[in-house]
Amino acid sequence: MSMTTVHRIHNFSAGPAVLPLPVLEEIQRDLLALPGVGMSIVEISHRSSTFETILARADADIRTLANVPSNYRVLFLQGGASLQFSMVPMNLLPAGAIADYIDGGSWADKAIAEARKVGRVQVAASTRAESYRRIPLQSELQLSRDAAYVHMTSNNTIEGTEYKQLPDVGDAPLVSDTSSNMFSGPIDVRRHALIYAGAQKNMGPAGLTVVIIREDLLHRAAEKKSSLPTMLNYGTYAENRSLYNTPPVFAVYALGLVMKWLIGEGGLPAIGARNERKAAKLYAEIDRTGFYRGTAAVPDRSRMNVTFRLATEELENRFIAESEAEGLDGLKGHRAVGGMRASIYNAFPEAGVDALVGFMKDFERRHG
Amino acid sequence: MSMTTVHRIHNFSAGPAVLPLPVLEEIQRDLLALPGVGMSIVEISHRSSTFETILARADADIRTLANVPSNYRVLFLQGGASLQFSMVPMNLLPAGAIADYIDGGSWADKAIAEARKVGRVQVAASTRAESYRRIPLQSELQLSRDAAYVHMTSNNTIEGTEYKQLPDVGDAPLVSDTSSNMFSGPIDVRRHALIYAGAQKNMGPAGLTVVIIREDLLHRAAEKKSSLPTMLNYGTYAENRSLYNTPPVFAVYALGLVMKWLIGEGGLPAIGARNERKAAKLYAEIDRTGFYRGTAAVPDRSRMNVTFRLATEELENRFIAESEAEGLDGLKGHRAVGGMRASIYNAFPEAGVDALVGFMKDFERRHG
Repeated sequence: MSMTTVHRIHNFSAGPAVLPLPVLEEIQRDLLALPGVGMSIVEISHRSSTFETILARADADIRTLANVPSNYRVLFLQGGASLQFSMVPMNLLPAGAIADYIDGGSWADKAIAEARKVGRVQVAASTRAESYRRIPLQSELQLSRDAAYVHMTSNNTIEGTEYKQLPDVGDAPLVSDTSSNMFSGPIDVRRHALIYAGAQKNMGPAGLTVVIIREDLLHRAAEKKSSLPTMLNYGTYAENRSLYNTPPVFAVYALGLVMKWLIGEGGLPAIGARNERKAAKLYAEIDRTGFYRGTAAVPDRSRMNVTFRLATEELENRFIAESEAEGLDGLKGHRAVGGMRASIYNAFPEAGVDALVGFMKDFERRHG
Repeated sequence: MSMTTVHRIHNFSAGPAVLPLPVLEEIQRDLLALPGVGMSIVEISHRSSTFETILARADADIRTLANVPSNYRVLFLQGGASLQFSMVPMNLLPAGAIADYIDGGSWADKAIAEARKVGRVQVAASTRAESYRRIPLQSELQLSRDAAYVHMTSNNTIEGTEYKQLPDVGDAPLVSDTSSNMFSGPIDVRRHALIYAGAQKNMGPAGLTVVIIREDLLHRAAEKKSSLPTMLNYGTYAENRSLYNTPPVFAVYALGLVMKWLIGEGGLPAIGARNERKAAKLYAEIDRTGFYRGTAAVPDRSRMNVTFRLATEELENRFIAESEAEGLDGLKGHRAVGGMRASIYNAFPEAGVDALVGFMKDFERRHG
């Protein structure tokens, strides 16, 4: 239900990113007052039964979607993945212990810098010298004997690479920053000890972070309780069902609607297949003639962030300006790497991919 | 503009709390696509010029409203006031120094507990033994000779007390948690070194924290840069215009609309006068016969959170149930203190206060 004809463009932004239209329409419809509640979602108390139900449903739907085992807790936090870069070592790295980090992209690099402020870090492998154009190989991993955990980044938003299968880290707890490909396809929660993700790419609006943590890891946080700030202790969220203080109510609500939408679309296998198809169309066009050049190593190409370049920066600037004029927004690559990036998260419509492919063909015809 | 006739009730919640109806209507109208942008506010990139403008306007409107001097920075953060309980000492309390805390309510008590995890704390005065029914007197303050700062809570949401004039803390930097009366009337920013407030009472939706900090205090944070987590360093927000990582875009947008509304209503003097009038009506009714009993010391009564009791808990439960049935929602006092609490923040309509006064008279007639 839309109030007037609304002009919407194709939003290729890397995040915050496009949300499903039915979700936006439901938010809009109920914005002045939730049905039967008489107050807006942006006004209701986080202690109200209405919000308790919204929170419990979001939790349950995440569990359903990702088949989260019962010994894992789903936590709702604030501060983005960037705050998790600190919270992970603050909670999980005991004094004197060491954490292994796989340095596969710019965000992993930031995670490492924050972890080093907290404790001992070993970089298990790095592709930094190759501008992170590929994911480190299993054979390259130099893991510590008794790592407190091994940290990885499942998808590199900036460089456009993505793990196709999880690394084997032996018995060490695997911690993964899944911010940019969370719920973009099936995820084997059981192989992780902790998963964290900012909501603003595949899950909802900015301002909400989801953490899925195996319960036994909460003991490590409990041991630091007297020194760890309450708001930075995972235990605070686990013990208070993420209601120790006021959570970002609207963002939790919107995330819940997205989870419901995902389930309705057929869940993670179905959305995964769609994402494969969308990405394959773009990569096929990139590879068709050599006019475009994919920047990520082919086996590691991301289904979420498709990065590519043209022969000259001048041509790239023209590509970005012309595509924007045609309602294809946000195709400029990250300022750190240049070029183009098409972010095509779950809610990005296949028609938008087709529109971009059409534009790319046309652009090549005119400038090739 | 409302899409259908929407039933809205009177929301006395302590926060998240009622927002101005024109603000909700504008959010609703533009929810699918901001005019001329073609994307929803919950989808746009925080690096877009659209959001840069929204952020800059929110900053400018806060400055206009509160007459913020040019040597103060306005920062937008996440995590609520509860995270500020830790960030304040982490940033402002140098090793070996001492911070003074005025313990005037339950939230001050929590702030003290978090500060003690970071460094040395002296409680300058406390009314805890009197169940925080009053604000500590100026004459009771025992200030350290060289306090790194003095921390106060300007309004006590739970106990219903409020500072009517700022304490004199000499040359020490004054840090104030203004979460529950921010922008409810004129505020003398110049007398503060740092002001922080969760947005969800007077400023906007939950999930956003505003910090106003005097620039010279950023030096203390800078000295801790190598050990302080990046996301917990005020300098990160000051240096990056609150755009180091993805901010809570929707909440910043909504806060901006509330600031615009406040300016349109005549600014802080006008809203202050209205708040005085609203609170005076309720306190007059509480004091009228003795059937109701105000819990806060009269000189310290809050204009935001009006707390009162009845002769028995049974009568209180009846009051809460009957008022709720009449569309007066959220009057149950905080679980820590019981009784009733009417939170009547800026956006709470005077008609709602009149409705409550009418209900109170009627309830007394039936049960007095």
